[in-house]
Amino acid sequence: MKNLFGPNEGIKIPTETTIRLSQKNYVEVCVEILKTVGVPREKGEHLVKNLMRADMRGISSHGVNHFFMYVDLLEKGVINPKAEPEIVRETPSIALINGHKGFGQLACKEAAELAAKKAKENVVGSVGVFNCGHVGHISDYTRMILEKGMIGIMYLNCDPSVAAYGGKKSILGTNPISFAIPAGEEDPIIIDFATSVTAGGYITDKLRKGEKMPEGWAIDSSGNPTTDPKDVIIATAEETLKIIGAQLPAAGHKGYGLALAVDVLAGALTGGKCDGDVALGENFAFIQAIDPGGFVPREEYEKRVDKLIRTCRASPTRPGVEKVLIPGDPERKAEKEALELGIPVAQEVWEELSELGQKHGINVKEIVRD
Amino acid sequence: MKNLFGPNEGIKIPTETTIRLSQKNYVEVCVEILKTVGVPREKGEHLVKNLMRADMRGISSHGVNHFFMYVDLLEKGVINPKAEPEIVRETPSIALINGHKGFGQLACKEAAELAAKKAKENVVGSVGVFNCGHVGHISDYTRMILEKGMIGIMYLNCDPSVAAYGGKKSILGTNPISFAIPAGEEDPIIIDFATSVTAGGYITDKLRKGEKMPEGWAIDSSGNPTTDPKDVIIATAEETLKIIGAQLPAAGHKGYGLALAVDVLAGALTGGKCDGDVALGENFAFIQAIDPGGFVPREEYEKRVDKLIRTCRASPTRPGVEKVLIPGDPERKAEKEALELGIPVAQEVWEELSELGQKHGINVKEIVRD
Repeated sequence: MKNLFGPNEGIKIPTETTIRLSQKNYVEVCVEILKTVGVPREKGEHLVKNLMRADMRGISSHGVNHFFMYVDLLEKGVINPKAEPEIVRETPSIALINGHKGFGQLACKEAAELAAKKAKENVVGSVGVFNCGHVGHISDYTRMILEKGMIGIMYLNCDPSVAAYGGKKSILGTNPISFAIPAGEEDPIIIDFATSVTAGGYITDKLRKGEKMPEGWAIDSSGNPTTDPKDVIIATAEETLKIIGAQLPAAGHKGYGLALAVDVLAGALTGGKCDGDVALGENFAFIQAIDPGGFVPREEYEKRVDKLIRTCRASPTRPGVEKVLIPGDPERKAEKEALELGIPVAQEVWEELSELGQKHGINVKEIVRD
Repeated sequence: MKNLFGPNEGIKIPTETTIRLSQKNYVEVCVEILKTVGVPREKGEHLVKNLMRADMRGISSHGVNHFFMYVDLLEKGVINPKAEPEIVRETPSIALINGHKGFGQLACKEAAELAAKKAKENVVGSVGVFNCGHVGHISDYTRMILEKGMIGIMYLNCDPSVAAYGGKKSILGTNPISFAIPAGEEDPIIIDFATSVTAGGYITDKLRKGEKMPEGWAIDSSGNPTTDPKDVIIATAEETLKIIGAQLPAAGHKGYGLALAVDVLAGALTGGKCDGDVALGENFAFIQAIDPGGFVPREEYEKRVDKLIRTCRASPTRPGVEKVLIPGDPERKAEKEALELGIPVAQEVWEELSELGQKHGINVKEIVRD
C-alpha cells in the first residue's frame, strides 16, 4: 500500500508487526479493563468506540495507543467516569457545556449534536465545552455534525507540548482543528490536523518503538533540532510521560498563529484554560455547525462542493505522486480495509495492552480467543 | 532592523531602495490616477487607504504593488467603481451580501460591521460576501470587528495559483485566513496568512526585482521545485500576469485542507465560486464575529488572553532568536515606524507608479513635490 501523503499524514500504514482485531474483541478487551477502574460498561463502550473509530480510520495516534493514558487518568481521578455533561448557558444559537471532568467523548458528542440542532434552527450554531476530559480525534465530532447535513468546525486545545514560534519551551498544545464538509454526490471532505508539525501520538509511538523521528518535528530542551524522541518526551519513574523538549508549530508562524487562535476560542472563550495551564487529559473545545441551506439553496452549495472535489481529483500530479486525494480519502480507505480485515493494532501496543490487562486481572488473550 | 520572523512573514524590511511617502501624498497620487479611470474620489480614497494600511503595516504584498492590478481591472471593467454592496439575505445572526462587482473594500467593510453588530446582539454573527472585487489584506476587516470588541474571523478565496497537495496545476487560491483577537491590557493578537507557503504578492515582487525565490514556495509547470519566479508567473503580451507553474500549500496537506475549507466557506456557502472558477480580481468571503462576553464574563476572557500573550512573550527563545513575538507585533512595529518616517514603497514600485501616472496624464512626482 503506497502512502501518498507521506509520513506525517495522520495515517499509519500497517506493518508486518501489526495485528488485526475484530470490533467486538477490540471493544471487549478495553471495556473489561475499564470496568476494573470503575467505568460502567455503557460509558466504557462510548469511550472505546471513539478510540476504535480512530484506529479503523488509520488515525493510530488517537487510537488504542491512548488507552493507557485514559486508564492512568481514571486511576488518578483526573477523569470522573460517572460525570454527565451539563449545559450551563444557552441561547437559540450558542451554548456552553460543563463537562464536569467526565469523558470528553460524552461532552463533545452532546456539544456537536447541540451545535447541529442550533444550526438547523438558526443557520449557525456555536457551542463551547470546558472541564472536559480528553476527547480523542476531533473529526469524530465534526463528522457527527456532517451526518446532520451541516458543515462542522471544531477547535480543541490541550496540554502544552508545542513551542511558540521562535521559542524553545512547550507552552501550547498541539491544538487541532477539524472541518467536516458535506458535498452532494461526492464523498465529504474531512479535515483534521494538529496545528503542530505532527500529533503528539506519533512522537510517543516513535519513543515506544525506539525509532528516530523525521527532521522538523521537534526541538530538544536547548531549542536545537532533534530526531531523537527521548530529547522531547521521557517516561518518568511514575510511568507517565513528561515533555522535556518541544514540538514545533506547523509552517512556523502560521501554525503558531492557528494554535493561539485555537487556545483563545477553545480555552479563553469557554472560560476554560489556555497556554501552560491545561493539564494532561484535559481538553477545551469550541464547535460550530453551519447549515449551508441557510445561506444559499442547498443544491447550489452541493454542486459547487462536488465540482471543487472533482477538480482536485482530476488534477495532474507532481512527479512520483499517483493521484491527488481529498482530505478524508485516506481514512475512508483505512476504514474499508479495517471492516474487511479487522482493526490494525501495532504488535507493541497489543503486548502492552495484554500486560495492562494482566495487571488488572484481565486475561486479554482469553477474551480475544473467544 | 532584524527580521525575527524570517523571509516569509508578511513583512518586507525596507531596503536602501525603499522610498518613504507621506499618507497625504500616497493617497493623492493613487486617487488622481484612479479618477482617470472613472473612480469617484470618495470611493478611490476608500480603496487606496486599504492599500496604504497594508504598506504601513509592512504587508507590502497587499500594498501599492497591487494598485496596478486594480487600475487594470477597472480599465477592463472587471471591477465597477460605482457599485454599492447590497444585503440580499438576512436573519438576526447571519447575512449574505452581494458586492455587485464593486470594490471588495466596500463590501467587506459592510460585512465586517454587520457581523460585529449581529454578534453584539446574538453573540455570533456570520456574513458571507459574493460578487466582490479584490479586497486587499483581510486583517483590515477582522480588525474592524476587533475595534468593536469582538473576535473577528475571516476566510477569503481568490483566483487559482496554488496546487492541490500532490498536484501540479494551480487550482486553488492562496485562500487566506485571519483572526483578530482582543485581549485585556495586552495588545490584540492579529493573525493573517495565506494558506499557501507565501502570498502571491511576494512572488510578483521577486519577478519584478529579478530575484530568486526561497526554496519551497512553488513548482514549475512540470511539478518540479523551482526558485525562479519566471517558472511560476509570466507577464503576457497584454501586460497581465499569467500563472504557468503553481504555488505550494503551506505545510503540505494541512495548508491544502485549509485552502479547501476556505474555498467552501467563502466560495460555496456564499453562492459564489470555488476552485478554478474564480477570476483575477474577484474575491468571495466568509466573515464571523464572536462576542466573548456572550459566552463568559468579559473580564475572565480578557484575563485568560492576557495571560496567554504574556506566557508567549516570556518564553525562552531558540538559539539565534531575540524574542518570541505575538502575531500582530511586526505590523505594530512597522506601523509605528511608518507614522514616524513615512510609508515605505519600493523604489521599483515607485518608478512603475510614476510611469502609470504618466500614461494617464498624471505627473506623480509633481503631486509628491507639493
